[in-house]
Amino acid sequence: MLKLHGYAVSNYYNMVKHALFVKGIEYEAVTALPDQGPEMLAKSPMGKVPFIETEQGILTETNIILEYLDEVYPDTPLYPSDPFEKAKVKEVLKTVELYIEAPAHTLVPELMGREKVAEETKKTADAMLSRGIAAFQHHASFSPYACGENLTAADILIYYSIKLAKAAGKVVLKRDIVTEVEGLAELMSLIDATDVAQQVVAENKAALKAM
Amino acid sequence: MLKLHGYAVSNYYNMVKHALFVKGIEYEAVTALPDQGPEMLAKSPMGKVPFIETEQGILTETNIILEYLDEVYPDTPLYPSDPFEKAKVKEVLKTVELYIEAPAHTLVPELMGREKVAEETKKTADAMLSRGIAAFQHHASFSPYACGENLTAADILIYYSIKLAKAAGKVVLKRDIVTEVEGLAELMSLIDATDVAQQVVAENKAALKAM
Repeated sequence: MLKLHGYAVSNYYNMVKHALFVKGIEYEAVTALPDQGPEMLAKSPMGKVPFIETEQGILTETNIILEYLDEVYPDTPLYPSDPFEKAKVKEVLKTVELYIEAPAHTLVPELMGREKVAEETKKTADAMLSRGIAAFQHHASFSPYACGENLTAADILIYYSIKLAKAAGKVVLKRDIVTEVEGLAELMSLIDATDVAQQVVAENKAALKAM
Repeated sequence: MLKLHGYAVSNYYNMVKHALFVKGIEYEAVTALPDQGPEMLAKSPMGKVPFIETEQGILTETNIILEYLDEVYPDTPLYPSDPFEKAKVKEVLKTVELYIEAPAHTLVPELMGREKVAEETKKTADAMLSRGIAAFQHHASFSPYACGENLTAADILIYYSIKLAKAAGKVVLKRDIVTEVEGLAELMSLIDATDVAQQVVAENKAALKAM
């Protein structure tokens, strides 16, 4: 059986878990935390979670895992079959991952109350977020999902990724990223209302509390 | 006809051009430089090149363009058809893009002689490069190509991307990234010897000289 390694504190783990639930794929959950020790690096060479273990071996990187799962388990597809439409889903997903989540991530030490982030870092993150948000708005249709009438892998990434960006934006930069993107609040509510999201979020909260 | 927007100074433009040559796809080249002006952002919302213009619209992001081209033009595939093997190619490509090229990129101002990079930035880049290189070695087989016996999209990304990392590593960090990865020098030589690489590199050199 497919194994999903990671833990419910990780947003990226939760994205893959969400996709597995939506697609109805059975899997075995194996607890793994981000770790730079040799045992972990032998499986996930950047020391990151999630990763999946298939009969053919291990795969890392959430978007690559989602694309793989969609090919091997075609029921309830999370990518359109048309090559151009599929590319647009990947474009939205990559835009949020690299140009919104990554700059928001530089603000995490201050968000978590660990240490103040340098003013220079804040300025860079603020400028990068503005560019990323404009690109996100450009690519996504929010009709009602990010890429049309159906839920795709882009929506799943957005749902978990934007929560971090929203919190970091609010606490560190005093800006509300969700209201800056027209249609995004409605998309978040749409997914919030699903059983799958409620289960994944409840398990995320329980895991955070247990830490 | 398919249009490729960009210019031969850009490594990422050259990757797509290389793939188009290898696959024998006819295209029209349209000169475009990275630009944050409104006309450019209306096409490529991060202001980046390359992007392609298809009958269905514009696509950005090199790896997404390469995957799209491989689906629409199946001759001379650059990704394996097996979903797991395909995912491994994407994994190698993403590892080099995010964990080698991105940290190397933070060193570019000093590489280009524009300004010294802060010691903190160098230390971070140095540590990230070590992790990225170990992950690259873990994922790639170099047998003789990065993912087996056939040239894939990962090799094309590596070929252009590693040149920047090599130069930045040598000049700013005094380390030789190519010799740190077993099998990489041989892969670079293998691609260096091809007509396609020689044409793309010659046009890159001419474009750099013209600047």
